Amino acid sequence: MPPTTAFFSASLCRRVFKQSHFLRHHRRRLHSEIEYPLTHPIYTIWASNTSLGKTLVSAGLSMAFLSSSSAPFAKKKFVYLKPVQTGFPDDSDSRFVYRKFSEFFVYKPLPFSVFASNCVSRASVPAASAVLGNGVAGGSVRNEDFGAEFVKNGGNFSGRLESVHWYEERKLQGSDSNEAELFPVSEVVCKTMYGWKEAVSPHLAAEREEAMVKDSEVLDTLNRCLRNILVGASCGTEESEVMCVIETAGGVASPGPSGSLQCDLYRPFRLPAILVGDGRLGGISGTISAYESLKLRGYDVTAVIFEDHGLMNEVPLLSYFQNRVPVLVLPSIPKDISDDLISWFEKSQMVFTSLKEIMLSAFQERIQRLHDMPKKACDVFWWPFTQHKLVPEEKVTVIDSRCGENFAVLKFQSFDWISQQFDACASWWTQGPDANLQIELARDMGYTAARYGHVMFPENVYEPALELAELLLEGVGKGWASRVYFSDNGSTAVEIALKMAFRKFLSDNKVLLQLLNDGENGRCMDLKVLALRGSYHGDTLGAMEAQAPSPYTGFLQQPWYRGRGLFLDPPTVAMCDGLWEVSLPEEMQPKKSGNECLSFGSRDEIFKKSRDDSGLASLYTSIILQELQLISDSNGLSHIGALILEPVVQGAGGMQMIDPLYQRILVRECKSQKIPVIFDEVFTGFWRLGRESAAEMLYCQPDIACFAKLMTGGIVPLAATLASHAVFEAFTGDSKLKALLHGHSYTAHAMGCTAAVKSVKWFKDYRTNMNLTPESRLLQELWDTELVLQISLLPAVNRVVSLGTLCAIELRAEGCNAGYASTYASSLLKKLHGDGIYMRPLGNVIYLMCGPCTSPDVCRHLLEKVYSRIREFAQQKDKSTISTS
Amino acid sequence: MPPTTAFFSASLCRRVFKQSHFLRHHRRRLHSEIEYPLTHPIYTIWASNTSLGKTLVSAGLSMAFLSSSSAPFAKKKFVYLKPVQTGFPDDSDSRFVYRKFSEFFVYKPLPFSVFASNCVSRASVPAASAVLGNGVAGGSVRNEDFGAEFVKNGGNFSGRLESVHWYEERKLQGSDSNEAELFPVSEVVCKTMYGWKEAVSPHLAAEREEAMVKDSEVLDTLNRCLRNILVGASCGTEESEVMCVIETAGGVASPGPSGSLQCDLYRPFRLPAILVGDGRLGGISGTISAYESLKLRGYDVTAVIFEDHGLMNEVPLLSYFQNRVPVLVLPSIPKDISDDLISWFEKSQMVFTSLKEIMLSAFQERIQRLHDMPKKACDVFWWPFTQHKLVPEEKVTVIDSRCGENFAVLKFQSFDWISQQFDACASWWTQGPDANLQIELARDMGYTAARYGHVMFPENVYEPALELAELLLEGVGKGWASRVYFSDNGSTAVEIALKMAFRKFLSDNKVLLQLLNDGENGRCMDLKVLALRGSYHGDTLGAMEAQAPSPYTGFLQQPWYRGRGLFLDPPTVAMCDGLWEVSLPEEMQPKKSGNECLSFGSRDEIFKKSRDDSGLASLYTSIILQELQLISDSNGLSHIGALILEPVVQGAGGMQMIDPLYQRILVRECKSQKIPVIFDEVFTGFWRLGRESAAEMLYCQPDIACFAKLMTGGIVPLAATLASHAVFEAFTGDSKLKALLHGHSYTAHAMGCTAAVKSVKWFKDYRTNMNLTPESRLLQELWDTELVLQISLLPAVNRVVSLGTLCAIELRAEGCNAGYASTYASSLLKKLHGDGIYMRPLGNVIYLMCGPCTSPDVCRHLLEKVYSRIREFAQQKDKSTISTS
Repeated sequence: MPPTTAFFSASLCRRVFKQSHFLRHHRRRLHSEIEYPLTHPIYTIWASNTSLGKTLVSAGLSMAFLSSSSAPFAKKKFVYLKPVQTGFPDDSDSRFVYRKFSEFFVYKPLPFSVFASNCVSRASVPAASAVLGNGVAGGSVRNEDFGAEFVKNGGNFSGRLESVHWYEERKLQGSDSNEAELFPVSEVVCKTMYGWKEAVSPHLAAEREEAMVKDSEVLDTLNRCLRNILVGASCGTEESEVMCVIETAGGVASPGPSGSLQCDLYRPFRLPAILVGDGRLGGISGTISAYESLKLRGYDVTAVIFEDHGLMNEVPLLSYFQNRVPVLVLPSIPKDISDDLISWFEKSQMVFTSLKEIMLSAFQERIQRLHDMPKKACDVFWWPFTQHKLVPEEKVTVIDSRCGENFAVLKFQSFDWISQQFDACASWWTQGPDANLQIELARDMGYTAARYGHVMFPENVYEPALELAELLLEGVGKGWASRVYFSDNGSTAVEIALKMAFRKFLSDNKVLLQLLNDGENGRCMDLKVLALRGSYHGDTLGAMEAQAPSPYTGFLQQPWYRGRGLFLDPPTVAMCDGLWEVSLPEEMQPKKSGNECLSFGSRDEIFKKSRDDSGLASLYTSIILQELQLISDSNGLSHIGALILEPVVQGAGGMQMIDPLYQRILVRECKSQKIPVIFDEVFTGFWRLGRESAAEMLYCQPDIACFAKLMTGGIVPLAATLASHAVFEAFTGDSKLKALLHGHSYTAHAMGCTAAVKSVKWFKDYRTNMNLTPESRLLQELWDTELVLQISLLPAVNRVVSLGTLCAIELRAEGCNAGYASTYASSLLKKLHGDGIYMRPLGNVIYLMCGPCTSPDVCRHLLEKVYSRIREFAQQKDKSTISTS
Repeated sequence: MPPTTAFFSASLCRRVFKQSHFLRHHRRRLHSEIEYPLTHPIYTIWASNTSLGKTLVSAGLSMAFLSSSSAPFAKKKFVYLKPVQTGFPDDSDSRFVYRKFSEFFVYKPLPFSVFASNCVSRASVPAASAVLGNGVAGGSVRNEDFGAEFVKNGGNFSGRLESVHWYEERKLQGSDSNEAELFPVSEVVCKTMYGWKEAVSPHLAAEREEAMVKDSEVLDTLNRCLRNILVGASCGTEESEVMCVIETAGGVASPGPSGSLQCDLYRPFRLPAILVGDGRLGGISGTISAYESLKLRGYDVTAVIFEDHGLMNEVPLLSYFQNRVPVLVLPSIPKDISDDLISWFEKSQMVFTSLKEIMLSAFQERIQRLHDMPKKACDVFWWPFTQHKLVPEEKVTVIDSRCGENFAVLKFQSFDWISQQFDACASWWTQGPDANLQIELARDMGYTAARYGHVMFPENVYEPALELAELLLEGVGKGWASRVYFSDNGSTAVEIALKMAFRKFLSDNKVLLQLLNDGENGRCMDLKVLALRGSYHGDTLGAMEAQAPSPYTGFLQQPWYRGRGLFLDPPTVAMCDGLWEVSLPEEMQPKKSGNECLSFGSRDEIFKKSRDDSGLASLYTSIILQELQLISDSNGLSHIGALILEPVVQGAGGMQMIDPLYQRILVRECKSQKIPVIFDEVFTGFWRLGRESAAEMLYCQPDIACFAKLMTGGIVPLAATLASHAVFEAFTGDSKLKALLHGHSYTAHAMGCTAAVKSVKWFKDYRTNMNLTPESRLLQELWDTELVLQISLLPAVNRVVSLGTLCAIELRAEGCNAGYASTYASSLLKKLHGDGIYMRPLGNVIYLMCGPCTSPDVCRHLLEKVYSRIREFAQQKDKSTISTS
């Protein structure tokens, strides 16, 4: 798009690039440790534009909350936080709230006393100097609400943001003569976190005053504030009611100090929102658009409030918001700047009281619902792969939301918290987006639903399906695939692949085809699939038949399963005690000559193409040829119609890495015998193992390959079966009956295709995926090599496989502790949940899984926690062994 | 939410209700016949707020376009349309563009002459009087661009909008002395469609001046304008370049005259957008939010342009829009109202030229892509159920978008058009939303992606999954189901249902279970499913096995298929020659006593429970018992482990309606023999047949039921298998291995659950679905009974089944013209495509399918077209029979 930059100097372009680069880098590291109590309502006050009266609403709420009659004798605490203030100190919204509350109190006192205070923590140099110059600063600095950490850091940890000793307070005397006996002293606490001098957008002020503050710092400070304020209030012995509001700066999508839009900046908290709308001409549009921007970031808007300008904006707004969000109208605000607004506040009292009631009851409803959810889930859900008898209510995790790689879960620890957990099972192997991609996907999903909904696929074309097909053929299908067949999930993709392969096999074997054409219905012909033991291809019957018998395939699970495969035992590879070792299956042991090299110093050596000339290669070749010979020697009715394998790593089979040399030889031999080759890349595709497709690591190409899971970035189900031109040709002819008659209604649905286009492009572009460089098509190493080695040395650990986004650890276990149904790891995982890592075991195998864009720093952090918990776990197991022996 | 209305009088509430009711009613009927040429670029100019300079941008574009140097000797035509103008006649944006263009031309003439004009068509009484009072009106009225219809109607078809004879024109003399020989005369055409006097939001002005105009009228007028202008320009012999811009009023979500938001009002056109942003403080937020509102309606934004206010808003905007949308900055606009802006336009010329270039090249790119799509689709897609050899490029439909029930497709007729087609295969049986629900779903999809992305399901709970499970159990599962098992599509839902049923059967038959527990691996036990011939349950192997042999199940399609069912031939029902008739399968014929009533005057009689006592009931019972006896008499290794059926209508089997009496008796007999009953409601569920579940029409309940398709409103794939408590209990125990070990990664994905919650609620609420009344749980009759009867009487028609949202018509055909692979109906369907109805046949069966909210008026309209085309078709067939005989 060359004209874009026609009007901008090169330096501006550099600046924009620098900024967005900076932003990406920033956002990537943020929201690590967000955790705040759900004991009291916290709301964010947003506005659809600047100067619409957010601060008036906050001040009005302080008055309404304090005069609340619901619990007249409880201590009340209203907290007002202004994280980002520009135009400071001339403008200070926290001071405005503090003062207006005080003035209103004096004008119309409450029966009880109130201790009101206002403090400002940090400001840019120009703003801080202005404070000193003004001599406005009051008494001492009370910093306890910012927590110990802040004090330790001396308050000046942003380089150019100075700490400001602005603190003012007053005690407002209650009107009841017995108040000292009857009521505890209530509080109104106002705080500004950061101030800048110029009255412009925070990102401009921060830049001009050379006083930047990172997004992560803003969030950390806010998090500490909330924790200290609310935890303090909850731990006290007296009954207390608290309400906290956080006022943003400007409009919902106005940039914060770093340049990130504020609606993105505060997203990790996902606090419920009050939207201050616009009652002026044009204000309906602005209010609705602002609401939609908040929704597009996953916020819940509890109420919309705006100032009356006589245009009846409430009529269309009520119509738009009907049954969704209450709309409140404030009386017109006096324009005379000498007006102290006291009588306006009095006139507005009823509206603010209603707003407060709405906020309190929405909060109560939310808490109630969150509490009820585990029981209800246990009552109505039927979870897959789950023995419900083993999942009591208290084991159910309530997931409130996710932001990038992190869940926000409900956690109980003395009281309720919203706590972030790293989703280390990457939502069951599908999820890839970081927080930035998630927001992009949200907008794209909205757009696609509005543009297409869903449109039927056969004989039609529409942009997302075409764009995705092209992208897949240039990416994972490059060099071999010519057609894309869409379906819904890995299992259907595999059923389709098998149908393709069998047809190709039959059309390549003219003799067999002739038999069929001669009227043999083929039912006596036994087409088998060649597959590897331990592989998993899905749970529909056709996919199950390609799997060796396992706990999933028993008669009680699926009485129709027969296992129509010839199943080979593959050699596996893993890091054991610091070395990458190949384990040969039993049947190969006797044929070993002893010259085979089975240990490797590094993972890269295992993937070397030069191993094709090794002794192990000869061993593998002879074993494979022998197996293939066996079947062709059989009755003549059995034929191998397809080879199917998961390249490099078998996922559900316990995160087993298969010797790539073995798979390469197997593919070569099948191809030479005209057996069509299917790669099941449902798990391994799209950078799961560090490359766009795992096939690249085998240096060979299939005839058919299946993709799903990560393809859509993990947002909606979609699968694709790619096929070569020769496979496609086996289905062309004059009759529709020769076509592949398999399909699902949502085939190539626009939503899935759009998500996949965005995600696949995002993952493979070094400008959006910082784990890639312009030069390399490989993800950088995400799991610290030394730490992986250390973990493999732990006595409790049997083997480790770290590759791409996956780090799997098999715990040493025996008997009923091993295998799929084992609950051996549960105590360990519970500890790790407490550490903020959400993991789910595969029997005695545990794993960490991240997205293709997850920072190696985050991975190291996770791995360190896992390392120390496993060490601890082993010690406990040792102890318990000793104590029982 | 009681506090919402606390501040509004009852009359306001009534008004709001009336308005939204009015809106719903309105929007429901709109966009019927939208069709406009793609010969020249048409853009809509939007703004993020009022008074940001949309009209200045339009005027600037007129100048830039006319002075374009790309084809200096071509005739140029710039069209400016202002559909909705308030503050008229004092404010008139079309006059402003007309005048500024003329003034600028005089100041800086082009080499060629330009004929400029401005006209205003209709206005409210106060506005029209003001025009007369002002005496501003110019010469004659040229109305040709509004088409013949408008002239016929006398221009005054809105009741209170009067036609205004405001027309002004001037010829601007070219500067080149030879211009008359060298250049054709170019044109600048400015038009205002509707004017109101008060300078307020159009919905307010329309109300206050009692001059409403319906959305459909605005669209129709606009559509006619575009057609006349562009078709005229394209049919001329001389080379001409045209650009058209349509300027909206206020902000993107400002209400139009009826109160609908303008971004919703103009959505059926989905014209590419230019967004005029805001360069002021707070303007970054407003611009981004406005952009997001446009995206949430499926618009493509081609460029963002805004006035510089010295705040460098372009820096964060460029960062936000990076790689997506070009951002242009206009010089600051003089604030002095006496300034004629000529020098500002001169200064801005470069920016406008760039904007124009961006618009032209985006248009070219779009056209090119649309043209390329069919070929590319044929090259890379592998469509399901499609013999590619039979689908040449020219048969491929390019779908640009959908709006409610209508596709917008690319159509070639002399030149390219975007043309609306009713999606009569309801995107392959999934699609249900009207235009309003689609927009709601779009916002919800964006929200859900932002809030959850996807989170894994087992042992977790999150709001959308829980809400959906509760909703299903209170709806389609009411009275019998207690658990919800999620999966991805109908086929997987059926595989799960079969696994459930078999387990239940085994646990109910202790003897068999004992055998298994004694170590029998069960492989010798042959569990069969009882099913109906002609049924379809999906394309994965397990689902296929429950189907009788058919074209889908041949050895070449799936060599593993055996057909593990006992397949019964059911009696069917249809309207034949004006009567509802039961057809008995051959095997029942000999057992008929002759007393059975096989004809019915109305469809309702067929569903009557009182038929249980009829002679036909006895016949059915005896046949069914006999079949069940046969299997239990067999070798003892075969058992019927489940009954599966599609209640009432078999979809893929050719839209066959099964006699509900037969199905009811079958269910009763199976239940009495402890055979678990599965209802496959994938096709029939959620009002497809006029009720929330088809089971209601059978008056009986299953043990297990499968739902998918319409459940999400047809936006993303999601399926649910509901089960009774007794079925669930067969899987509980102490071991995980006893649990149902079947699952898919995206199980209960938040996107699908959210879409389903919204859609199911929308469909079942009479306030959103106008086909329901508060009293009734039935959709009103959508297909005109008399028309259906007339169609059944046509000689070309064999039978008709009209029920709920479905109207299926079997054409009389023989030999290779009948059956699944038949292409018999293709010439008929081609005609209907031309009529704006997108249909797809099932062999010689054609069908119309609408959504649960589609208006009966629309259905009648469709049916009328189908009726006359079938009549015509039969005549042609007759003729061809005659001519060949």
